[in-house]
Amino acid sequence: MLSPVITLTTDFGSEGWYVASMKGVILGINPRATIVDVNHSISPQNVREAALCIAQIASYFPAGTIHVVVVDPGVGTERRLLCVPMRDQVFLAPDNGVLSWAARGVSVITRVALSEPRFWLPTISSTFHGRDVVAPVAAHLSLGVPVHELGTPVAQWQELPWPEPAVQSGQLGGEVLAIDHFGNLITNIEESTVARLCDRRPIIVRYRDRDVPLARNYSDVPVAHCVALIGSTGLLEIAQRNGSAADQLHGSVGDAVQLLVPRNQASNTARS
Amino acid sequence: MLSPVITLTTDFGSEGWYVASMKGVILGINPRATIVDVNHSISPQNVREAALCIAQIASYFPAGTIHVVVVDPGVGTERRLLCVPMRDQVFLAPDNGVLSWAARGVSVITRVALSEPRFWLPTISSTFHGRDVVAPVAAHLSLGVPVHELGTPVAQWQELPWPEPAVQSGQLGGEVLAIDHFGNLITNIEESTVARLCDRRPIIVRYRDRDVPLARNYSDVPVAHCVALIGSTGLLEIAQRNGSAADQLHGSVGDAVQLLVPRNQASNTARS
Amino acid sequence: MLSPVITLTTDFGSEGWYVASMKGVILGINPRATIVDVNHSISPQNVREAALCIAQIASYFPAGTIHVVVVDPGVGTERRLLCVPMRDQVFLAPDNGVLSWAARGVSVITRVALSEPRFWLPTISSTFHGRDVVAPVAAHLSLGVPVHELGTPVAQWQELPWPEPAVQSGQLGGEVLAIDHFGNLITNIEESTVARLCDRRPIIVRYRDRDVPLARNYSDVPVAHCVALIGSTGLLEIAQRNGSAADQLHGSVGDAVQLLVPRNQASNTARS
Repeated sequence: MLSPVITLTTDFGSEGWYVASMKGVILGINPRATIVDVNHSISPQNVREAALCIAQIASYFPAGTIHVVVVDPGVGTERRLLCVPMRDQVFLAPDNGVLSWAARGVSVITRVALSEPRFWLPTISSTFHGRDVVAPVAAHLSLGVPVHELGTPVAQWQELPWPEPAVQSGQLGGEVLAIDHFGNLITNIEESTVARLCDRRPIIVRYRDRDVPLARNYSDVPVAHCVALIGSTGLLEIAQRNGSAADQLHGSVGDAVQLLVPRNQASNTARS
Repeated sequence: MLSPVITLTTDFGSEGWYVASMKGVILGINPRATIVDVNHSISPQNVREAALCIAQIASYFPAGTIHVVVVDPGVGTERRLLCVPMRDQVFLAPDNGVLSWAARGVSVITRVALSEPRFWLPTISSTFHGRDVVAPVAAHLSLGVPVHELGTPVAQWQELPWPEPAVQSGQLGGEVLAIDHFGNLITNIEESTVARLCDRRPIIVRYRDRDVPLARNYSDVPVAHCVALIGSTGLLEIAQRNGSAADQLHGSVGDAVQLLVPRNQASNTARS
Repeated sequence: MLSPVITLTTDFGSEGWYVASMKGVILGINPRATIVDVNHSISPQNVREAALCIAQIASYFPAGTIHVVVVDPGVGTERRLLCVPMRDQVFLAPDNGVLSWAARGVSVITRVALSEPRFWLPTISSTFHGRDVVAPVAAHLSLGVPVHELGTPVAQWQELPWPEPAVQSGQLGGEVLAIDHFGNLITNIEESTVARLCDRRPIIVRYRDRDVPLARNYSDVPVAHCVALIGSTGLLEIAQRNGSAADQLHGSVGDAVQLLVPRNQASNTARS
């Protein structure tokens, strides 16, 4: 019998003993668990970074996957730990908004606060609930414990609003949401928004006083040139072919990115 | 049939081909092995760092786990490689003290020097016994080979003494043992020692000419303030709430940390 | 029933969501796959680095292993993705020479260009064929899909020539091919070449105007001294005992390394 996959997304670093302790706890409860490290290099306490990461990967995992997200600036306070079934998977995380972006466009039926200590380690530290509470709960879930046995349903949760780009006639104001390993600047502007805006019209991507051509592939521009395209995230990104746009353009998370329809075409915008 | 977990703790880095070669060797001998990376970012040849790491994680893994620790400044010398059953697990490591802290408070019944080449790769390099000797031995252990078949028992092994804090009337002198990913300064002062010393009395944690309040949770101090608490390691640590104590206090491994009972109370110390 | 191992070698970094997305895709198709991370820290677009890495590890993995190598500066161009059975394993990679060094001395019977979309994800991004094409193909292979069903055979592929050292009477000119995690300078000079050249004669390893002694073990020189030896790669490497030769000698990839037979012995070279 196969167990579901358990994924781990944390800000613990992959050096040190924190992540391995969680894995030991999980395997002690369910030796058949398949554990997948998603990312342990989330910047310490950076809920937004983790929210984007888990939103990006969830749909690529099979039904039944249990996603554990532990970025927990509130550890030791009264903040709750939640179990949230979404789509055909289950998510475990502190109640700090870190699941909000994975929940976009999904109907969330129930959320359960982890309050049932029989699924925890016998001793709970004050600083590492990832190991002492979340890991054992994930392992019990993977053995078939139903979500509702883990604790009490909660009506509200913390939400992290998605930073919707601001739309004004013929212009869209977005921002850099993340910078990936290659130095690609990933924005909050979605493929459908770009498609709607640029339908049958050329558009301009403006970033740091520079117009970046919009294309389909890195290879549509010469090596070392910058290009804007819909990346594998489904989001508009600004990239440098075979290089780092972040380095070349001195990009930072939070930078403004504009999509413009050139002026003589902007009057058509309202129609589309 | 399930195989035991095999954990890996090394100074090989997770980039490069060293760790993967070990995994290939293990899976070639036992395709059912569940391999867990504990930490491959031990500072090169830093036996103390590895000793702390394996001591921290071992008890969180299930019975039968095989722990492989390869931090081996003596590779190519006459130093032995050991197989040491402890508690209900088995440890494999060079004989350089790296298992000493995991062995604290545990009765070690036997230690076997790996001397039986039929459990090794056919060709042994002079620089990578982790791949050529330890990995295949771990895999054979996971298949059920008994420890005593791996080589000859040895009476003595290298010991790395635990740096016991110095106790003087009403004062305890410890040190920073490690700095974790969050910049928490982890000391050699154990929970039981703190409990004994501070029983019914306030105590002061002094670090770099600063008095740090002793508390239970990060959240007992305001954001960005420093706090001393018993961390998830069971050791006293100095932390900054939602920040890095190491950065703020310019902390280093080896720094002195003092626990003081204020003078008007120190006279009571002898009684407790 | 056991599935083959699937190894992953990429330049995606282990932070971020790229690698995890590939794992999710694989586990969605074959939940029994055993996935091994080889190295996700290949320098971006560095085909040589990845070529050396996969050549180093392949032979340590069991028969049937599926090796996935995604270092793909040409993503989005017309470059092909290949499936190449070699020895008793299967390799998947872009057609950019990255498999050339693993193929040294091996007879490559067939190469298939991945052209059969029924083994891909339904939607193919323009920037991440590792997730959308290679990962699902690897998973299908691990389920038993035969190589020839994946696409069409191709006669030619891109080759990355191995940088053979230049031989002149009594002297051999090699280069630093890679620097490992310990700062060892790994050259393109193979054990057999060294054995042939130094047979019964002392030889000198010259690097950056310095003569480095040739030895068998790190421990043949005092701590902090440099030494040349045949490393675990089967290649000549220049190391510092318990230190970093790269730091001490300011070494870089591409540096010249010479093997010299002292002059009074060089006249014998032609005979050997």
